[in-house]
Amino acid sequence: MKYINELREGESVVEHYLCKSRQSLKSRNGKTYLSLKLQDKTGIVDAKVWDMNKDIQSFAENDFIKIDGSVTVFNNDLQVNVKRIRRSMEGEYDPKEYVPTTDKNMDQMFQQLLDYINTIESPYIKTLLEEIFLRHPLISKEFKYHSAAKSMHHSFLGGLVEHTLSVTQICEFMSGRYQFVDRDILIASAMLHDAGKIMELSDFPENDYTDDGQLLGHIFLGAELIKDTAAKINGFPKQLESLLKHCILSHHGELEYGSPKVPETIEAFILHCADNMDAKTKMIEEMLAADNTQGNWAGFSRMLQRNIRRSDYK
Amino acid sequence: MKYINELREGESVVEHYLCKSRQSLKSRNGKTYLSLKLQDKTGIVDAKVWDMNKDIQSFAENDFIKIDGSVTVFNNDLQVNVKRIRRSMEGEYDPKEYVPTTDKNMDQMFQQLLDYINTIESPYIKTLLEEIFLRHPLISKEFKYHSAAKSMHHSFLGGLVEHTLSVTQICEFMSGRYQFVDRDILIASAMLHDAGKIMELSDFPENDYTDDGQLLGHIFLGAELIKDTAAKINGFPKQLESLLKHCILSHHGELEYGSPKVPETIEAFILHCADNMDAKTKMIEEMLAADNTQGNWAGFSRMLQRNIRRSDYK
Amino acid sequence: MKYINELREGESVVEHYLCKSRQSLKSRNGKTYLSLKLQDKTGIVDAKVWDMNKDIQSFAENDFIKIDGSVTVFNNDLQVNVKRIRRSMEGEYDPKEYVPTTDKNMDQMFQQLLDYINTIESPYIKTLLEEIFLRHPLISKEFKYHSAAKSMHHSFLGGLVEHTLSVTQICEFMSGRYQFVDRDILIASAMLHDAGKIMELSDFPENDYTDDGQLLGHIFLGAELIKDTAAKINGFPKQLESLLKHCILSHHGELEYGSPKVPETIEAFILHCADNMDAKTKMIEEMLAADNTQGNWAGFSRMLQRNIRRSDYK
Amino acid sequence: MKYINELREGESVVEHYLCKSRQSLKSRNGKTYLSLKLQDKTGIVDAKVWDMNKDIQSFAENDFIKIDGSVTVFNNDLQVNVKRIRRSMEGEYDPKEYVPTTDKNMDQMFQQLLDYINTIESPYIKTLLEEIFLRHPLISKEFKYHSAAKSMHHSFLGGLVEHTLSVTQICEFMSGRYQFVDRDILIASAMLHDAGKIMELSDFPENDYTDDGQLLGHIFLGAELIKDTAAKINGFPKQLESLLKHCILSHHGELEYGSPKVPETIEAFILHCADNMDAKTKMIEEMLAADNTQGNWAGFSRMLQRNIRRSDYK
Amino acid sequence: MKYINELREGESVVEHYLCKSRQSLKSRNGKTYLSLKLQDKTGIVDAKVWDMNKDIQSFAENDFIKIDGSVTVFNNDLQVNVKRIRRSMEGEYDPKEYVPTTDKNMDQMFQQLLDYINTIESPYIKTLLEEIFLRHPLISKEFKYHSAAKSMHHSFLGGLVEHTLSVTQICEFMSGRYQFVDRDILIASAMLHDAGKIMELSDFPENDYTDDGQLLGHIFLGAELIKDTAAKINGFPKQLESLLKHCILSHHGELEYGSPKVPETIEAFILHCADNMDAKTKMIEEMLAADNTQGNWAGFSRMLQRNIRRSDYK
Amino acid sequence: MKYINELREGESVVEHYLCKSRQSLKSRNGKTYLSLKLQDKTGIVDAKVWDMNKDIQSFAENDFIKIDGSVTVFNNDLQVNVKRIRRSMEGEYDPKEYVPTTDKNMDQMFQQLLDYINTIESPYIKTLLEEIFLRHPLISKEFKYHSAAKSMHHSFLGGLVEHTLSVTQICEFMSGRYQFVDRDILIASAMLHDAGKIMELSDFPENDYTDDGQLLGHIFLGAELIKDTAAKINGFPKQLESLLKHCILSHHGELEYGSPKVPETIEAFILHCADNMDAKTKMIEEMLAADNTQGNWAGFSRMLQRNIRRSDYK
Repeated sequence: MKYINELREGESVVEHYLCKSRQSLKSRNGKTYLSLKLQDKTGIVDAKVWDMNKDIQSFAENDFIKIDGSVTVFNNDLQVNVKRIRRSMEGEYDPKEYVPTTDKNMDQMFQQLLDYINTIESPYIKTLLEEIFLRHPLISKEFKYHSAAKSMHHSFLGGLVEHTLSVTQICEFMSGRYQFVDRDILIASAMLHDAGKIMELSDFPENDYTDDGQLLGHIFLGAELIKDTAAKINGFPKQLESLLKHCILSHHGELEYGSPKVPETIEAFILHCADNMDAKTKMIEEMLAADNTQGNWAGFSRMLQRNIRRSDYK
Repeated sequence: MKYINELREGESVVEHYLCKSRQSLKSRNGKTYLSLKLQDKTGIVDAKVWDMNKDIQSFAENDFIKIDGSVTVFNNDLQVNVKRIRRSMEGEYDPKEYVPTTDKNMDQMFQQLLDYINTIESPYIKTLLEEIFLRHPLISKEFKYHSAAKSMHHSFLGGLVEHTLSVTQICEFMSGRYQFVDRDILIASAMLHDAGKIMELSDFPENDYTDDGQLLGHIFLGAELIKDTAAKINGFPKQLESLLKHCILSHHGELEYGSPKVPETIEAFILHCADNMDAKTKMIEEMLAADNTQGNWAGFSRMLQRNIRRSDYK
Repeated sequence: MKYINELREGESVVEHYLCKSRQSLKSRNGKTYLSLKLQDKTGIVDAKVWDMNKDIQSFAENDFIKIDGSVTVFNNDLQVNVKRIRRSMEGEYDPKEYVPTTDKNMDQMFQQLLDYINTIESPYIKTLLEEIFLRHPLISKEFKYHSAAKSMHHSFLGGLVEHTLSVTQICEFMSGRYQFVDRDILIASAMLHDAGKIMELSDFPENDYTDDGQLLGHIFLGAELIKDTAAKINGFPKQLESLLKHCILSHHGELEYGSPKVPETIEAFILHCADNMDAKTKMIEEMLAADNTQGNWAGFSRMLQRNIRRSDYK
Repeated sequence: MKYINELREGESVVEHYLCKSRQSLKSRNGKTYLSLKLQDKTGIVDAKVWDMNKDIQSFAENDFIKIDGSVTVFNNDLQVNVKRIRRSMEGEYDPKEYVPTTDKNMDQMFQQLLDYINTIESPYIKTLLEEIFLRHPLISKEFKYHSAAKSMHHSFLGGLVEHTLSVTQICEFMSGRYQFVDRDILIASAMLHDAGKIMELSDFPENDYTDDGQLLGHIFLGAELIKDTAAKINGFPKQLESLLKHCILSHHGELEYGSPKVPETIEAFILHCADNMDAKTKMIEEMLAADNTQGNWAGFSRMLQRNIRRSDYK
Repeated sequence: MKYINELREGESVVEHYLCKSRQSLKSRNGKTYLSLKLQDKTGIVDAKVWDMNKDIQSFAENDFIKIDGSVTVFNNDLQVNVKRIRRSMEGEYDPKEYVPTTDKNMDQMFQQLLDYINTIESPYIKTLLEEIFLRHPLISKEFKYHSAAKSMHHSFLGGLVEHTLSVTQICEFMSGRYQFVDRDILIASAMLHDAGKIMELSDFPENDYTDDGQLLGHIFLGAELIKDTAAKINGFPKQLESLLKHCILSHHGELEYGSPKVPETIEAFILHCADNMDAKTKMIEEMLAADNTQGNWAGFSRMLQRNIRRSDYK
Repeated sequence: MKYINELREGESVVEHYLCKSRQSLKSRNGKTYLSLKLQDKTGIVDAKVWDMNKDIQSFAENDFIKIDGSVTVFNNDLQVNVKRIRRSMEGEYDPKEYVPTTDKNMDQMFQQLLDYINTIESPYIKTLLEEIFLRHPLISKEFKYHSAAKSMHHSFLGGLVEHTLSVTQICEFMSGRYQFVDRDILIASAMLHDAGKIMELSDFPENDYTDDGQLLGHIFLGAELIKDTAAKINGFPKQLESLLKHCILSHHGELEYGSPKVPETIEAFILHCADNMDAKTKMIEEMLAADNTQGNWAGFSRMLQRNIRRSDYK
């Protein structure tokens, strides 16, 4: 495959790319042309279609497309002048080449997560988790591929399962350290805390907020998911349902971060800490991994609002 | 009826009161006695049962009880020494004598609210409102008697319907003043915005937060109510359901006031303003009505964090 | 008229525009040239005067000027090379073509506002309003044409009278809904609440903060206006003057929004709510009206710090 | 004089005191009695008038009264049973015995302040200061006796002149240290910055917020004073008036402290710093002076929200 | 031993108690008497010494004293009238009866903490920890007995070692979960993060802020401890010293919680999370353990500003 | 010298400049070139080295270099194409031509500061100041040349001594105005309050945060400096050391500005006020001095978040 960061001025290029943006514009002489952004995992390049003819078949943003064009330079940036376009067919391209992806094994992480279900003692909670992770039409299928965020932490294919597994492991560790912790509730709410993100964020390659995501948010959507599922389980205790929903609703920790309730149970509080700890430590890790500057300082993290330093010393 | 603010030292009293608090204590010589707080709408008085015998029949907090006792003074405060207690029977007392109540007609206000249903054009929203206000087992029965708060504004019998009607009337007025307002959505969400309070706050005389009220809150409970009801209505549009739930979720206006989303539609924003305006103006009105000091200043409002002045001038 | 959004490369243009910005610069070879921004209601275009000769007559920022030039392209943006300039004379141009203007009838709105004066019962307040709206040299003349803001809501010709009328109508509606409201005080302070903006913001086309606007602000200037006017009215009650000034001073609702006092009377509080409600709902309405993107989301409002959605559904 | 902190159980007392509080109450047997708080500079004592007869002449809160009574103990606190009361006549008592007073010479401090007037170069500012400090009916008379606050700093007779002189001296010192400082504006606004307190706070012994104080505040009242006075001075420059008013309006430094504008000129900024520095350092000094505990820590300052330590060391 | 919660009116009592407070007062007839607060782990009782004679030997606050007195009732509260007092001698009393103490084994916890030292790879860090935990005159002796706070979490004998061990264990668990973590730095800073509390808080029974504690705080004192110790270790890398001090300085996570720097390294961030998580989860655990009310709600936590619920359900 | 703001297209230039930035980049055809930023006190210009040969000798960022090149225009900005580079030698250039410098006499200001040492009465404090200002290897040498900030106030050569002297003079003035002020402590902590900046910020021309500056900050570094120095002085009182360190630690006034303690002594509080007052008044002065626009408004200060006006009036 010809990666975007390998394109050079003057070359021809025939390749499948993800069309991340597609605008129909009018030039000064009134002619319509297309302005595109093509993406693969190595970067993004501008492309123009100056001549709209039958070789330019119909396609939409976030489609994979096969293009035939030539590489030019405009305003010091590379630009592809495209002569032919058609939509790519499944199988012609490997999605992993086009979007950032976890470097861990998604199937294996999902299986590790599922393995927690058998450690649950409460038959109600166990059934609830099975309904959601094994039988829910959307979640059972997409959980392992989803990202955990649009642009914060774990914003890559598999990010959701990676983050969820990590939070669950931290909660497991914490569950034995304090009295009064109901391990079943803690593990289940750890596994489910971000499940609403599957409804909040659309799949890669779009990976953007859905209508419901913006209007309702993953916190509400996650609590609603528990309600819907519990309603199908005979005799599911009402108070248990409320305790689980409380963990989901309060997991951002403070009202100003979008939780309509602060954590009022020991499980809800531990879940909040574990979620916060994993998400932000991962941000630091991602920043250090991406850093290739000299010296120990890796630059300013906009999300954490601070400079980050690797702990090397001499 | 012998009201509590009419009791005088040395009198005997035989009357029905609401038992607002009931503690079993041990005196220094090891004997068990009861310490009660008796309430009617004129005030609260301490009472003691020093001798636990068969004349003291079983009862619980928030029961209405008939007592037989005598009025004494302890530490400069009146106290009733109680010799006989039994639970009151329905019909022996008029609940309105014991709890604060709206001075408006609750049936009439509820009917005015119901009248809005026929002004709704969307058959889906109309059915939704009918399901909730006419057929929901709890809400259809209790809406008109409920309070709107534990201790803020409209914290009296009928406060919920009074506040809801007022917010709906303001929203009706506003709906014609701006473009792009979907009147159906605005009126429906105004009518429903505090319906979750019926699940959040228990009935008078207790009028305290329920378990679900504390764990989940009326904002979430109200949105869940819409979901449950919409699920029963054939073909209820998903986006419409989300828009209505968004209005409920965002009606506190800001995350730090417990809304997991800020208002993003024009109806959600107007609803928030109308709710805020009615609730706080009512606080000022209640404060001015209760004020009987000399001068124009009615004292400090803890809820509004300011002194309040009536606008008299000479 | 040749509108700015209709200019095309290579055309000649002879037209009146508003000169929004005028800078005298020196080119690398030391020659002086002018860099202008020309505006009409359809947009803004850069213009250059490379040759300063007698055909370039004297003018200043915010003058209307007649230009003769040709349209070129520089750095992908249109630019007008100007050969001749003179100041436009009144009558040669229609100001409404150059600045955004309310789509409602300014005279009619102003008359509706004046009609409220006759509904006032207090002779003192009535005279005060007449002095200000009918006889104040600046306000009586400019109120109906002024904008309500530099860049927030109602920032167009006639915005002040449109916003003021709307707030007054909302206050009228609210005045009958609560006890203890002095309708005269509420209506008068609604009519006057933003009158200080006439001193705070200069007229269109400049529409920028004045020296006094920046040093003192419209809140103080509005309260000072009441003081000055009341001083001319025989026997005007001192406490009434203070109550009116309090409404003006407190109408932003909180100290951090520039009110030196929070609302302490019921009229001051209602005024604050009505002002806030109208201003922000108008922002949403303006955003939805300007939106021409596909889908229901109209983009991010910087002033409200949120995405805005129109309530369409299917 | 018999001071309140010298009263002993069983004594008779005939003395003039300040009546700080006066309530008419009804005893349990329905008889009316008076409950008073008597004050001198050494403390406060409760007093009761059980028998309302002709020996109890008419008086009001904040009157000085002559009482004849006997000292008893109730609930472990001293109480005076009063048999006779009449209003004290001027000359019978020395107000300084009843209210806290500066330990510096008020006349001398006021003269020092007046001496600054002759150092002003601008004839307009000089006249303005003379009008206010020498000829304003209220301010010229009361400035030297007023307190600077109800309960914060300098809350004693003469506190206003002491604080104002100190701020003026600091501003004088600062005025020579930076370029661009207009000394006249800085000195004048320092002298005037709290003049509005004379209208905001009533005189001792009441020393409470006036109606205007609560509705408008000393910041607005001070700016209004400048406006009124400048209006009487022929040719007073409008911009100079605005610059002086800006200094007054902004002297609390931040909107959330009640300034409707933040300091935007170098004089306004220096004034704010000097005011803040003198007020808070004085709070610390007052706290250290009042402290008579052992050890270096003088306790918690509620106003400064911290513990205060004297800097002794060994 | 006769515990304070077992005292009854009329009894004589001869027992050792901790004198938590000691005031010398003057009665109304001018006689001096002592007012004491006596404490053991079951509660606090007032005591008075009315007659100051040779049987009342000299003692100070926070001394253990042996008293001989009788139990009376004053104002409905028990009070001990004391006739004889002398200071207790070591061995006559068991300190654990007087102050709250961890229910875990302090020696064992301290040993577990020390065991971490041998897992450190860096010889510099290893020596640093040995110097502090094994050889520092104050810390090596008191660490295992100290409390972790005056009144927040772990405010009991042994609280410091319990909290420190827990934070270290969490950090150990986390150290293997993310890349770029220097385990030595993380473990060492976890062990040392609250060591400054030994200088900040005096020992039980006083357990109050020291002079240095108030002036400088445990965060600064802990960083200074590292500096002092590193200075004694030959060749201790300067950057390593800074990285360790950074972890201590930043462990409160945000400036407003008293950290002069926010965490900028991955170890500093993990330490902050682990500290916060353990401290607050412990508060919830302590609250649930102390709760003996009916129902699932354990009341309002002032420190966490929320109601706490145990996760029981039916 | 040929200043950067005098360069013109087409000229040759042979001159010494400060190399503020140096990046090695690869062109599209794979050739390596250098991209530089050259600085003198009049501005900054881009430079490119297209041909890396022996005429381009080795140098680093923040070196002074002698270049030989020609001035071209790229993308409307001047650019120097450089053919020869070598490091400049000391003596070939005058550093003051390259970095902003105080317009006051640095030697004289430093001497004025030193003169305060002889006014100190406490021999301990006197010795401490001598140790630091006369004998500390780094501070005694660099204090007079250092800047006081990276980009806030006094960010120029000599800024530290200018600011320190000014704060000390203000503190001297204040020390006589309030009781309980220990002048020695106040003067010493004023002289030392920003001494940590010498370790926090590297020298000009780099003038950037050091590793320790970012990890620990000048507040901690300054307190550590006092500790280190006091440790060398025989018998230095521990409490005095703590009082001085407290002044340094708390001089930012509030936790959220990076002070781990708020000022708790009168000296610490005065120091904080003097520091704040001088720093921010200097920002205004610098802004007014730099302003060359027409009119009285000098623009928006990002650091003070407000517009600044000079107090001219007519």
